Amino acid sequence: MSRFVMNRLSLALLHYPVKGKKGETIASAITNLDLHDIARAAKTYGVGTFYVVTPLEDQRALARKIVSHWKNGIGATSNPVRGRALDLVKIVPDISAVAGDLETRYRNGVAIVATSAAQKHGSIGFPALKNILAAPENKSTGFVLALGTAWGLTDEFMERANYILSPICGVSGYNHLSVRSAAAIMLDRLAGGGTKQ
Amino acid sequence: MSRFVMNRLSLALLHYPVKGKKGETIASAITNLDLHDIARAAKTYGVGTFYVVTPLEDQRALARKIVSHWKNGIGATSNPVRGRALDLVKIVPDISAVAGDLETRYRNGVAIVATSAAQKHGSIGFPALKNILAAPENKSTGFVLALGTAWGLTDEFMERANYILSPICGVSGYNHLSVRSAAAIMLDRLAGGGTKQ
Repeated sequence: MSRFVMNRLSLALLHYPVKGKKGETIASAITNLDLHDIARAAKTYGVGTFYVVTPLEDQRALARKIVSHWKNGIGATSNPVRGRALDLVKIVPDISAVAGDLETRYRNGVAIVATSAAQKHGSIGFPALKNILAAPENKSTGFVLALGTAWGLTDEFMERANYILSPICGVSGYNHLSVRSAAAIMLDRLAGGGTKQ
Repeated sequence: MSRFVMNRLSLALLHYPVKGKKGETIASAITNLDLHDIARAAKTYGVGTFYVVTPLEDQRALARKIVSHWKNGIGATSNPVRGRALDLVKIVPDISAVAGDLETRYRNGVAIVATSAAQKHGSIGFPALKNILAAPENKSTGFVLALGTAWGLTDEFMERANYILSPICGVSGYNHLSVRSAAAIMLDRLAGGGTKQ
C-alpha cells in the first residue's frame, strides 16, 4: 500500500481498558521497549501517529521521559535515528483524546480498528482492511489500529470499535505473540509486505 | 508454508560476531525481551529451534536463568504459555555449535541464511527463500535464519553464509526495525501471512 494510504493509519497502544490475567479490567504499566519497537515499526511503515494511551498521570510522565531521552537527551546524540521514530509518539489519556486529535485533521472523522489474538464475531481480514483503507471514499477518514497490552482489549472496547481485525494466525495453533511483534506483523501485512517481497 | 516446512527452519540470534556503532566487531549483551519475543514468534510460526548464540559464558548463564525462570521457576506457574515458547531455546557459544546440533538431525547438513537491514550483493527475496525451503531436494537440509543484534552481523559472517536474505523494506525509507520486530515479520512472510490473510 502506498505511503499516502499508510499515513492515514495511526496506532494506539492502550494500557486501559485492557484485560488482566483473569479477564478483569485493569490499567497496565508502560513497557519501555513497547514504545521503542512500535515507534520504529510505525516509522518504517509510514504510520501517521503512534498514540500511547494511559489514564494514569505518573505513567504518562514516564512515557514522556522515555521519549524525551531519545528526542532531546543523551539518546538523541548517541542514537539519532531512534529519536526520529519517537517523533511519532503522542501520549494521551484515553481513546477519546486519540479521536479528538485526529478529528482536527480528518474531515470525515475517525474509524477505530480493534485488534485481538482471538477470533471475534464479525471480524475482517487483512485484505478487507487494506481495501477499506485504500478506498477513495475513505480518504478523509483517519484510521486507528488499537492494540491492547496485558491480556488484550476489553470486550466492551471491542464492541464499540468500528472494525475488528482478524487475529494473526501462525502455523502452530500457538497464538501468544507480544504486542510488539503483533504490531510489526500487522503493519507489514497492511503495507503489502514491502517493496522487496 | 506448511508446518512441516517451517519446522525445518531454525533461528539463531547472534551476539557475536556483530557490529558495534562504528562498524567494529563486538560481542553484544543478552536482552531479556529478545528471548521472549523471538521465542513466542518462533513458536507461533512452527520454527524448529531458537538458538541464542554468545561466546561469553556469563551471558549464556544469564540466558539460561531467564529461560529457566519461565520453564521451571515462578514464571512457569504464573504464565505457563510463556514457558512453552521458551522450550524452543537452545543456548550455544557459536554458529558452529548451531550447525553441529542440526547436523545430527539433517542428513544433508545445514544452510545458513544471513539477514541484514541493508541491501547486500547477491541477496535473495522472501519468495525465493520460500521456494528454496519448500523444495523437495532440500527436505533433509536444516535451514538457519541468522539474526544479528547490535548493528547487525559482520561482513565476514555474511560472506560465509549460504544465502543472504533481502532486507525488510517498509514504505518510508526509514529502516531501523528492532531485531524482535524484524524476526516476527520475516517469519510471517515466510509462513505466507497466516491462514487468515
